[in-house]
Amino acid sequence: MVDLYELAMAQAYWSEGMDDTAVFSLFFRELPENRNFVLACGQRSVVSVIESLWFTGEHIERLASLDRFQPEFLDWLRDFRFSGSVHAVAEGTPLFPQEPLLEIEGPIAEVQLLESLVMNYVHLESVLASKAVRLALAAEGRPVIDFGMRRTHGLDAAHRAVRAYRLAGLTGTSNVLAGLDFNMPVYGTMAHSFVQACAGELDAFKVYADLYPGTTLLVDTYDTRSAVRRIISWLQDDPKVSIGGIRLDSGDLAAEAVDCRNMLDEAGLTDIKIMASGGLDEYRIAELLSSGAPIDGFGVGTAIGVSNDEPALELAFKLTEYASLPRMKNSPGKQSFPGPKQIYRRLGPDGCIVQDVVSGRDEVFDGTPLLKPVMKRGRVIEDAMVSLDDQVQNASNAIDTLPKRIRSLAPISEVPVVISDFLKALQRDTLERVRRA
Amino acid sequence: MVDLYELAMAQAYWSEGMDDTAVFSLFFRELPENRNFVLACGQRSVVSVIESLWFTGEHIERLASLDRFQPEFLDWLRDFRFSGSVHAVAEGTPLFPQEPLLEIEGPIAEVQLLESLVMNYVHLESVLASKAVRLALAAEGRPVIDFGMRRTHGLDAAHRAVRAYRLAGLTGTSNVLAGLDFNMPVYGTMAHSFVQACAGELDAFKVYADLYPGTTLLVDTYDTRSAVRRIISWLQDDPKVSIGGIRLDSGDLAAEAVDCRNMLDEAGLTDIKIMASGGLDEYRIAELLSSGAPIDGFGVGTAIGVSNDEPALELAFKLTEYASLPRMKNSPGKQSFPGPKQIYRRLGPDGCIVQDVVSGRDEVFDGTPLLKPVMKRGRVIEDAMVSLDDQVQNASNAIDTLPKRIRSLAPISEVPVVISDFLKALQRDTLERVRRA
Repeated sequence: MVDLYELAMAQAYWSEGMDDTAVFSLFFRELPENRNFVLACGQRSVVSVIESLWFTGEHIERLASLDRFQPEFLDWLRDFRFSGSVHAVAEGTPLFPQEPLLEIEGPIAEVQLLESLVMNYVHLESVLASKAVRLALAAEGRPVIDFGMRRTHGLDAAHRAVRAYRLAGLTGTSNVLAGLDFNMPVYGTMAHSFVQACAGELDAFKVYADLYPGTTLLVDTYDTRSAVRRIISWLQDDPKVSIGGIRLDSGDLAAEAVDCRNMLDEAGLTDIKIMASGGLDEYRIAELLSSGAPIDGFGVGTAIGVSNDEPALELAFKLTEYASLPRMKNSPGKQSFPGPKQIYRRLGPDGCIVQDVVSGRDEVFDGTPLLKPVMKRGRVIEDAMVSLDDQVQNASNAIDTLPKRIRSLAPISEVPVVISDFLKALQRDTLERVRRA
Repeated sequence: MVDLYELAMAQAYWSEGMDDTAVFSLFFRELPENRNFVLACGQRSVVSVIESLWFTGEHIERLASLDRFQPEFLDWLRDFRFSGSVHAVAEGTPLFPQEPLLEIEGPIAEVQLLESLVMNYVHLESVLASKAVRLALAAEGRPVIDFGMRRTHGLDAAHRAVRAYRLAGLTGTSNVLAGLDFNMPVYGTMAHSFVQACAGELDAFKVYADLYPGTTLLVDTYDTRSAVRRIISWLQDDPKVSIGGIRLDSGDLAAEAVDCRNMLDEAGLTDIKIMASGGLDEYRIAELLSSGAPIDGFGVGTAIGVSNDEPALELAFKLTEYASLPRMKNSPGKQSFPGPKQIYRRLGPDGCIVQDVVSGRDEVFDGTPLLKPVMKRGRVIEDAMVSLDDQVQNASNAIDTLPKRIRSLAPISEVPVVISDFLKALQRDTLERVRRA
């Protein structure tokens, strides 16, 4: 997966003998309007992909068919293996503008070839995790289950989404393969079609109670309150039946949850939980809970499947150093800070973030440095890799360090980030130099 | 790729001996706010995926590990091959609410298992094509190039997006593999990093002119107008140099295009084209063109990569018939029309759509029936499949049948669709029947 301009640039570097070391940084200049932070995901796991990248003989033949590449350059591509290094923040780290998710360092043509692949890989997981964490926070500890597979953009997204959702703190997924692959509990009982196909609604429920004790029944196919009444008289006739919950999927969820809860409680069925789904997002969940709706858990599809209000993050992958000289561009609104960097995160006595300093890589500040080496000379640093379970625990701890105003759904006016004086001076000096060039 | 509830329902159908024929319909109830039609894509090509679906021994073992499935049902899954039929509209057909993109018919458990896969597959291409066609229409014949790979959600999306963009009428892509796979021209020259890495801007341009005659130079790395002045004096000194265009990627694109065009024209460089990129969408393109900005082509990333204003389409996959009985649900706001369907599209003397009738499958109306059989007894109907080049031509013809008000970017208040009296009566009767049940 490569954009043509990367191959064109690689051939140009190669033909000019430009093989000095470059540093590229993946970061964003501004937060999306409806995000108070980005939950960076994928920036460490992508190194396994980088490690195993190469061009097959068939790739080379197909590239040759484009009639743009010299045979000697195609030979160089045939031998391509990434030989550089990567620094990245931990999976599930909340980040703010100007903070690199990762930095890649190596011979310039090699790093240039990784651009689109790395951006695509990290973008997907970071976008989906940054949305999902808002739903997890809005649900205030209640389970949030991913029902998004039908809406995620393609199969790769449907699969890797689940990894991002685990890091973001969701509880489970309907996606069987991804749940198994990423060790996340899988959930799911019935669609309306099952109820419609059976002779009557109660017939459908009885089949499920037999096959899946403790199941959750979908009650809105015809009329929610009638369905609940049917369930109640059935369970009163046959107290051995085990039903775990009901799911509301349409209508006025708050009003129906209240009515259903009252009906169930009056019948002594206080253990039957109420799940809600159908067009939910973090605002709707917050609204339902603040109205006191007795909902025990949420199933969410579209909102997290595509991050519907902010489906993209304007990640930039920028050259910041080449041949030991700092580099930057001067395009309007797109000036960047040159040089390799570090992020120092300082927590207060309450365990919450006080301030991040974005600094030059070799500067030292108070706080924890967030960027750590994860790949060296083209090989993954095994000691830097932790299990997904540990990544999830680390992400959860990192989310806990967010101050209340940043965790809330309301937009923040200021991010807790300062740029070091050294970086500011380096930007001024570099700008003067490139303006003279 | 399957959601747990599909497997749970399949086991329930299997255990109840419910193996009659079901008809499921894939459609949408409402248009997204910012779409006047959906360009349906993927609904025919998905049948090749369906044809090759099966559960491997490893799949079965992993499913067994969930402790939810009986050994005899797992044996049934092991033998699963889809044995039913599919009707679908042609690739690149503009559709309106209540019009099925496809209908799948077969033993109910088999069709149920396809639900999430089919929805995910068709959703991706239809969402991206429905956005891309708006950019193609806004550009009024000027080339629009896909630069979206870095923003599309994952690698599957980045790849199949390009197929959707071809059907939607885009001109080319930066994505090398997808361009080769889907026979779309690939474009791309340089990023800012190349300019930054070279000793000076003009050095970078000279390398490209040597390697890639007719290339497009990126001119906004430091200062757009200085860059163009440098190019002009270079070309005046060395008239043999071949430059095809310049690309503006930031700033006030309209003003810069005017200035650059004037500078180039005054120097007699009237053949050098001006490309624009950077945060473009259909509204921005329309605005630039209506302001008279002399822009010859557009590169677009985020807007088409994620369909940023409408990243999801609320596709529904609903049971409409089982065991020869029409089926429907009655959830608030989600009532559907039962029974298998056909769409008749009637064109006026100007070649534009006058009206679509959504009817029962066996009704006959004036106009062209849009749903055609593409799979029978689990096998793709080869005669129904046409080459991608022909699909693109058909899609282009179909887009040409859209009346001006529907092709425009302004929202429409009414869609040209009526429901047949037969379907309305069937809905009334079915509703009465299910209410009694």
